[in-house]
Amino acid sequence: MPIRFVLVETRHPGNIGAAARALKTMGQSELWLVAPAAFPHAEATALASGADDLLARARVVPTLAEAVADCGLVLGTSARLRTQYYWPVESPRAAAPRLLAAERAGGAAVVFGTERTGLSNADFDLCHGLLHIPANPEYESLNLAQAVQIVAYEILCAGDAAPRAARRLAPLAPVEELERLRAHLGEVLEEIDFTDRRGGPHLLRRLARIFGRAGLDQQEVNILRGVLTAVQARRRRAGSGP
Amino acid sequence: MPIRFVLVETRHPGNIGAAARALKTMGQSELWLVAPAAFPHAEATALASGADDLLARARVVPTLAEAVADCGLVLGTSARLRTQYYWPVESPRAAAPRLLAAERAGGAAVVFGTERTGLSNADFDLCHGLLHIPANPEYESLNLAQAVQIVAYEILCAGDAAPRAARRLAPLAPVEELERLRAHLGEVLEEIDFTDRRGGPHLLRRLARIFGRAGLDQQEVNILRGVLTAVQARRRRAGSGP
Repeated sequence: MPIRFVLVETRHPGNIGAAARALKTMGQSELWLVAPAAFPHAEATALASGADDLLARARVVPTLAEAVADCGLVLGTSARLRTQYYWPVESPRAAAPRLLAAERAGGAAVVFGTERTGLSNADFDLCHGLLHIPANPEYESLNLAQAVQIVAYEILCAGDAAPRAARRLAPLAPVEELERLRAHLGEVLEEIDFTDRRGGPHLLRRLARIFGRAGLDQQEVNILRGVLTAVQARRRRAGSGP
Repeated sequence: MPIRFVLVETRHPGNIGAAARALKTMGQSELWLVAPAAFPHAEATALASGADDLLARARVVPTLAEAVADCGLVLGTSARLRTQYYWPVESPRAAAPRLLAAERAGGAAVVFGTERTGLSNADFDLCHGLLHIPANPEYESLNLAQAVQIVAYEILCAGDAAPRAARRLAPLAPVEELERLRAHLGEVLEEIDFTDRRGGPHLLRRLARIFGRAGLDQQEVNILRGVLTAVQARRRRAGSGP
């Protein structure tokens, strides 16, 4: 399954066209659009120039969750270095071989946020890691197509360079399985009264990100859910259930 | 002397603006224009967005010879692989360290041809080498600003080299902390009767490896151990402890 380039809530259709062109020049083919403001659109077609085949085959979906549900590795892009996120921030160069490996084992996606504000926290929750594109710290205003181009360029270079490095033995678990694991974990945390003093979903999010980073395969998800079920079963047998 | 980016006989002023923006995002500042069709121009300014300072300082000269007269290393860019040229063709990645070295010793320039036809033979005669930007062989139509961006990006990466890649926010937890987490996890698995049917430490090892792969920091170890303690406390309060 080719690497999926997912543009979230793109405002300007011209940017979709320019991104399609950038993808095609770098040998990529898979464009997904999450709730674009306007698509199809004449401006997108105009800026795609010879890449209108990518536009014609672009998948439009209402949510990011749908776009990445069956992907094993999902990387979000961020212009700023978000210090509140507990992931290692990777460069596109470092991530490119991982994306290629995941492409062969369960599918991979790179996600680009909306033009001004980037990805939301909810979007980042669906990602396993964060890409930061190196740029001038005083003027980081890469536009969408430029960001898409750099990531696709690094994937092209990595494919040329080290063809078959870093292969995984089992396919990565898809995002929907990780979401089920997260929901299950949320249940258990509540049952054992392990709540976040700062309130809100912060703690659960942080735990889920640890699993996102680890790159779980399906069997590992099953083991972890088995542990969670055992915690619940034991508590219920002990008569302390809700 | 900063690396000079020389655009030769650019037809569309918008491309000059977009190139200026690409340069600025990648931390470059030196734009030279050889006989542009129209400059200054409102379209150039519009597409430069925050990079109008580069446009304001751009040097306009009538010939390429003038633009590169005092440079020690001049590399021409080419979309096609010109087999009639008897130079080794370099990638921007391979050339970037050479450009940086030349920048410190005598000056360096990268030269970009006109939109449709690229550099002329006479232009190439002024160059010391040829850059070919990797692209999809079936669709190599990088536009001018995209080509400028890739070259400037590679120079930025070569300058940064290692320092900025993959940086973590918090130091990784030391191995002894991971060992304590593993022992604690082992205790809890036993208490909740989650045993490995295949016997032995296989399951615990597998779980520990997930955490090993995730690259936990100290705070994350603390959170996970907090969850384990909550599981134990809850069971003990429920009176089902050993």
